[in-house]
Amino acid sequence: MMQGEIITTGTELITGRVSDSNARYAARRLHEAGLAVQRITILGDQSPLFQEILAEGLARSQFIIITGGLGPTEDDITVAAAAHALNRRLLLDDVLLTRIRRCLAQRRIPWEERYARLALVPEGAQILDPGGRACGFALNHDSVRLFFLPGVPDEMQLLFDAFVLPALVESAGGGECLAHRTLRLFGISEIQLQEVVCRLPEFQQGVAVGYYPCFPENHLSLTLRGPDQAALKAGLDRLTASLAREVGEVLLGYDDATLEELVGRRLRERRLSLALAESCTGGLIGHRLTNVPGASDYFGGGVVSYSNAAKHDLLRVPAEVMAQRGAVSPETALHMARGVRALFHADLGLAVTGIAGPGGGAPDKPVGTVYISLAAPEGEDVWHYYFQGSREEIKALTAETALDRLRRKLK
Amino acid sequence: MMQGEIITTGTELITGRVSDSNARYAARRLHEAGLAVQRITILGDQSPLFQEILAEGLARSQFIIITGGLGPTEDDITVAAAAHALNRRLLLDDVLLTRIRRCLAQRRIPWEERYARLALVPEGAQILDPGGRACGFALNHDSVRLFFLPGVPDEMQLLFDAFVLPALVESAGGGECLAHRTLRLFGISEIQLQEVVCRLPEFQQGVAVGYYPCFPENHLSLTLRGPDQAALKAGLDRLTASLAREVGEVLLGYDDATLEELVGRRLRERRLSLALAESCTGGLIGHRLTNVPGASDYFGGGVVSYSNAAKHDLLRVPAEVMAQRGAVSPETALHMARGVRALFHADLGLAVTGIAGPGGGAPDKPVGTVYISLAAPEGEDVWHYYFQGSREEIKALTAETALDRLRRKLK
Repeated sequence: MMQGEIITTGTELITGRVSDSNARYAARRLHEAGLAVQRITILGDQSPLFQEILAEGLARSQFIIITGGLGPTEDDITVAAAAHALNRRLLLDDVLLTRIRRCLAQRRIPWEERYARLALVPEGAQILDPGGRACGFALNHDSVRLFFLPGVPDEMQLLFDAFVLPALVESAGGGECLAHRTLRLFGISEIQLQEVVCRLPEFQQGVAVGYYPCFPENHLSLTLRGPDQAALKAGLDRLTASLAREVGEVLLGYDDATLEELVGRRLRERRLSLALAESCTGGLIGHRLTNVPGASDYFGGGVVSYSNAAKHDLLRVPAEVMAQRGAVSPETALHMARGVRALFHADLGLAVTGIAGPGGGAPDKPVGTVYISLAAPEGEDVWHYYFQGSREEIKALTAETALDRLRRKLK
Repeated sequence: MMQGEIITTGTELITGRVSDSNARYAARRLHEAGLAVQRITILGDQSPLFQEILAEGLARSQFIIITGGLGPTEDDITVAAAAHALNRRLLLDDVLLTRIRRCLAQRRIPWEERYARLALVPEGAQILDPGGRACGFALNHDSVRLFFLPGVPDEMQLLFDAFVLPALVESAGGGECLAHRTLRLFGISEIQLQEVVCRLPEFQQGVAVGYYPCFPENHLSLTLRGPDQAALKAGLDRLTASLAREVGEVLLGYDDATLEELVGRRLRERRLSLALAESCTGGLIGHRLTNVPGASDYFGGGVVSYSNAAKHDLLRVPAEVMAQRGAVSPETALHMARGVRALFHADLGLAVTGIAGPGGGAPDKPVGTVYISLAAPEGEDVWHYYFQGSREEIKALTAETALDRLRRKLK
């Protein structure tokens, strides 16, 4: 297996000011592609250790990814230090220089001599140009492939996906390419997911599988490598289909599509409007739904009925229901869903009521007791849950479960 | 200045499965205390590089902090590898063994021989025992101080704060101790904050200052070192007071107290109840307020009036106001605040309406246009903002600003 290293530089990293998202991103993507990272090193700007770490990497790795320190200021020393460590001259790259001049002119930033630094690269470097964004460069040194990328995470990730990963996969597999998909699941533990994957015969044949907890969801990444991109895509579709059959409804969706996007898409397709009655979640479900652009097409709004008065006055939950069954009860949840549906003249009313804690629990209704109800033209449902966790975790689980119930209903 | 290194181990780190919160935590706390980290190294479990990296650290650092690999399984090799690199025998620590047996018995886990591994430490190790939680150990080797901590972040942070940082500060300063405070600010840029700090004469005298962006807030950490804890505390109070005078109302609070906690505390103290009318934030303000335990004491609930119908039917925003001035206008915001205050019989009504984007903007009302209104017994206010950013950033800025307006009003 091809082995490599990651070196990230930046004073903001070595002082803990921000977390090192670049190293984590690269490590994850490489692992998904079946390439091993043996060491990640984080250094400050202008670290005297940089050349030494680079030399160590050259002696034992097949690839090294370096991020940060490519800027125009004096403390951006990566390029010069690398040229020194690799014993190569620094050359002014004319294409890069023209590109930098054009970028500055477009942004009406006057030219300064220090910007010429940005066009200096070690001899033999191959510019990685994503078109219109910051460039990086690649170098082959002896048998080691080196990639120098900017430290700004967006810029780094763009270049990593466009150039670094394809190049490494190709050289690792002798011309192979890569197909990758992330499955988003909710309602299945990582251990259960592992058991499903182990059972499926399709997973015996060199599929790289990664498990990523994204509370309250679990994400599963699948990566295939091979000579033919179309065949990989077909293989990925087959794998996904057999996994989807096996896990059933806990599969939410793929890649970047969030649960609220999926729910929104289905509401829009079916021309249904939704209203929310939120008690213990305090507005979190509405917040998530409205993170999706265009949510106003299907989401009319809701009531945060934190107090019993709000449940009664606005949602028309009968006082005797709350007195006899409690504000956290299946009956109250049902009346909330029914009430908010009527109040907003919506097709669907979704309601949650529960005890998020840490106080407010009772022996018959401990902290984490949650009722979710959905009122629809074809009928009404109530579901009962006991969630465990902190106040914020119980809120997050309640919101996710309510959206997931809605998703399943809209199938 | 004392210089050191951090080595974290774990397959979950080197594959990008989780982010390395331990290294970041240690790096930040050390930097705040004026101690420099020159390198952070992340390795997989059982890395063949571990001994080499440790040896390099011994040659050039005054302290090394190692996390992970202290567990009972075969892939937990940190202790054995460290003993080998340090050329020390592994000894069974009787106190530790007794403690482990007691812990297992309490949790009714039957004894297995492999648990004895947990009591093996290199000769000369000093056990770091926080009482009832996972232990670590410290070692002095030549003139280098080594600390071995568990990889579970809670356990690591507990030991780091209780043992590692005080020990390092004491040895760095020859018996010095440490006082630390974080100031939370909103509505001041990092550059403005730096200018204020540079202006104040109190900050010339060896105060370690750290800037931490926590969108949409900016956090500033202040650290003092000296021989006398009471004097440090008094010094910190003086610093904070002069900084507070200088920055004025943009100072939200200290350490872990969130804006929603501060607002909640003031509402409770003044026995005021609050109702919310949220349009572009979709429920985010209610979500934040209800993250605070006991929020029902002052928060009755709210209306997420995403549609114009909800603004009109529930909040009684006159149809002609919306038709003539628009749903995003100072007049609509004011009617929303007034309406929700009446609807919930609350002392205060807080309302937001705006264009979160990316669509929906117009030349006279671009994306990011936001109106915030507060209706109170003593009068009504409306504020107008243009925020820049993504949809989620504009929502976050709107929620933070609305809560901050409320906080200032409750002063």
